Amino acid sequence: MKLKIAVLAGDGIGPEVTREATQILKAVAEFGNHEFTFTEALIGGVAITANGTPLPQTTIDTCLESDAVLLGAVGDNKFNHLTPDKRPEAGLLQIRQELGGFANLRPSVAYPALAENSPLRPEVTKGADILFVRELLGGLYFGQPRWWNKEEGANGGGEAINTMRYTRDEVVRVARVAFELAQKRRKKLTSVDKANVLECSQLWRATVDSLKADYPDVTVEHQLVDSMAMHLMNIPRNFDVVLTENLFGDILSDESGVITGSLGMLPSATIGGKVNLYEPVHGSAPDIAGTGKANPLGAILTAAMVLRHSGGLEQEAQAIEVAVAKVLEAGHRTADISRGNTAANVTTQQMGKLVHQAL
Amino acid sequence: MKLKIAVLAGDGIGPEVTREATQILKAVAEFGNHEFTFTEALIGGVAITANGTPLPQTTIDTCLESDAVLLGAVGDNKFNHLTPDKRPEAGLLQIRQELGGFANLRPSVAYPALAENSPLRPEVTKGADILFVRELLGGLYFGQPRWWNKEEGANGGGEAINTMRYTRDEVVRVARVAFELAQKRRKKLTSVDKANVLECSQLWRATVDSLKADYPDVTVEHQLVDSMAMHLMNIPRNFDVVLTENLFGDILSDESGVITGSLGMLPSATIGGKVNLYEPVHGSAPDIAGTGKANPLGAILTAAMVLRHSGGLEQEAQAIEVAVAKVLEAGHRTADISRGNTAANVTTQQMGKLVHQAL
Ligand SMILES: CC(C)[C@H](C(=O)O)[C@@H](O)C(=O)O
Ligand SMILES: CC(C)[C@H](C(=O)O)[C@@H](O)C(=O)O
Repeated sequence: MKLKIAVLAGDGIGPEVTREATQILKAVAEFGNHEFTFTEALIGGVAITANGTPLPQTTIDTCLESDAVLLGAVGDNKFNHLTPDKRPEAGLLQIRQELGGFANLRPSVAYPALAENSPLRPEVTKGADILFVRELLGGLYFGQPRWWNKEEGANGGGEAINTMRYTRDEVVRVARVAFELAQKRRKKLTSVDKANVLECSQLWRATVDSLKADYPDVTVEHQLVDSMAMHLMNIPRNFDVVLTENLFGDILSDESGVITGSLGMLPSATIGGKVNLYEPVHGSAPDIAGTGKANPLGAILTAAMVLRHSGGLEQEAQAIEVAVAKVLEAGHRTADISRGNTAANVTTQQMGKLVHQAL
Repeated sequence: MKLKIAVLAGDGIGPEVTREATQILKAVAEFGNHEFTFTEALIGGVAITANGTPLPQTTIDTCLESDAVLLGAVGDNKFNHLTPDKRPEAGLLQIRQELGGFANLRPSVAYPALAENSPLRPEVTKGADILFVRELLGGLYFGQPRWWNKEEGANGGGEAINTMRYTRDEVVRVARVAFELAQKRRKKLTSVDKANVLECSQLWRATVDSLKADYPDVTVEHQLVDSMAMHLMNIPRNFDVVLTENLFGDILSDESGVITGSLGMLPSATIGGKVNLYEPVHGSAPDIAGTGKANPLGAILTAAMVLRHSGGLEQEAQAIEVAVAKVLEAGHRTADISRGNTAANVTTQQMGKLVHQAL
């Protein structure tokens, strides 16, 4: 099969982890006689430096002409003084919008080999296998009006506003994705909101409830975001598919990184739009960029999601996931997953190579 | 000394845990020859049932005439169908507003005796001692406009809006509380925001930074709320005072319940307004109300905060805290703190009595 992949390596550790992920994709292509092409384009801080904008039009064009977009990471402290609409992250938010994917899938799985690496007890993480479905195009991230006026406010000292906004249609489309995924998994859907305070959450909850009849085999439960932040740590095994609005999903999926043991392990795929967007959950981690300490497994598992959701290559996706598990079982560790008994013993590149060999 | 305390027991387990807390306060009064008076008033679901409103004017009056307000819990699933402004929780949000306290202090401490009770490893929780300072009167909880219109939206299917709003003054006043508390503790302040996306957070971060010069002995760090949700679980010991806006504090302080081992252990005090408001962090837990399973220690530790922040009775507050630690060390457990080796062996009332004896 053919797959045109736009590669947006981005900032910090983005390029080094993306390189390992594309190596794996190339290996899969060669082995299966597929034709994957890779086109690189700029996003984030590197795009600001080169083009004065975090998302040049050429990048958008490249992405829209591709079958899948593989992103590394976006974010650079150098631009912290800029307002949100000018920062590297604005490029990420804009490409999400341009591509139109509204359902961000974030699996959070406990690998037996990494059990010692989690701050949670092994008996707590054991068997945990959660799939977050995070709404990605609504809520506080995109709601208007939004502003920071340095002269506004009671005493003219400054005032800022962000808007959380959801329509029923926006909730329906992402909730249906979550329901369908739950049907293919353990048939449990946990919807997260703050319905005891927020009108947006009441709309959210009512909409999810209104769809239940279409998925009679799925059990639905509602959790308030605050309790959920606690339950996720207490009994992660209790959750199957977890549906959240944008910001709640941002917070809870990062938190759930501790179930796996490291954010560096977590992949994500954003589906439902014109072109699917694939990005590891971790950030640009400028402090370790270029040191060989970055964990490429999040990006490599993201590549597996490319194969699954854009290539229809489920077997190949699983082969990558099995290879990653094997490498971990063999005791190989980057710095972020070296808590407990096992010391870090491989670099970003070496880890990539090991997965390649295990494939 | 004299202390007029308004007691708003509220819903679910509220009355049973509040009873134990007031018993302890009475014991302290008797022992120290203080004059504490207690006036009960309605709030939440019980107030809706009795008066048709979650916060009757008589309750507001009682609170405003008191030196401190001790609240149990608010929330009843019976009213889930109502819009946020009519629900039991509206009474809680309104009394917070009427009393004017903007700084909600939520300590999250690891008790050695409860180490086995946390889903986190003992070596992770060991020594953790965090004080959340949660802004309590701003953000999405109170921002206007807010509505849920069932006919709005692109296809007329419904739309909802909430507004996150902060002024510089609102951030200054709560940040100063946090800085001052940090000065009395380990001199580290972690301010939480989502400044890479939200204008409100940029205002928040800039304001905190602008105050640093007034507290040169305090080290300030900024954390994004998503990473913070993870760091709190990975290395809770790294944090001293944690300053957050309203919703972020709601989520992170509940999450941090797992550091102590149970939400049922966590007290809170809200200061800075006309009358201080004291409430345990846990909710009304309708499922266990009346069964004797509720943990009164959150409410009892809240009573200690009444003595500390409204009575100026630091020694007495500490005496209660020591008594609680002793009872835990003696192995006494309510259901919520019975994970691990120790089975639940006492009821709500028995736990209250045990603390009384240990005093
Ligand atoms: C970098 C940032 C804008 C982004 C987000 O908040 O969505 C990141 O945290 C994520 O989770 O993908
Ligand atoms: C009951 C609810 C309105 C409340 C809040 O969100 O503030 C509670 O969760 C808390 O943390 O005190």
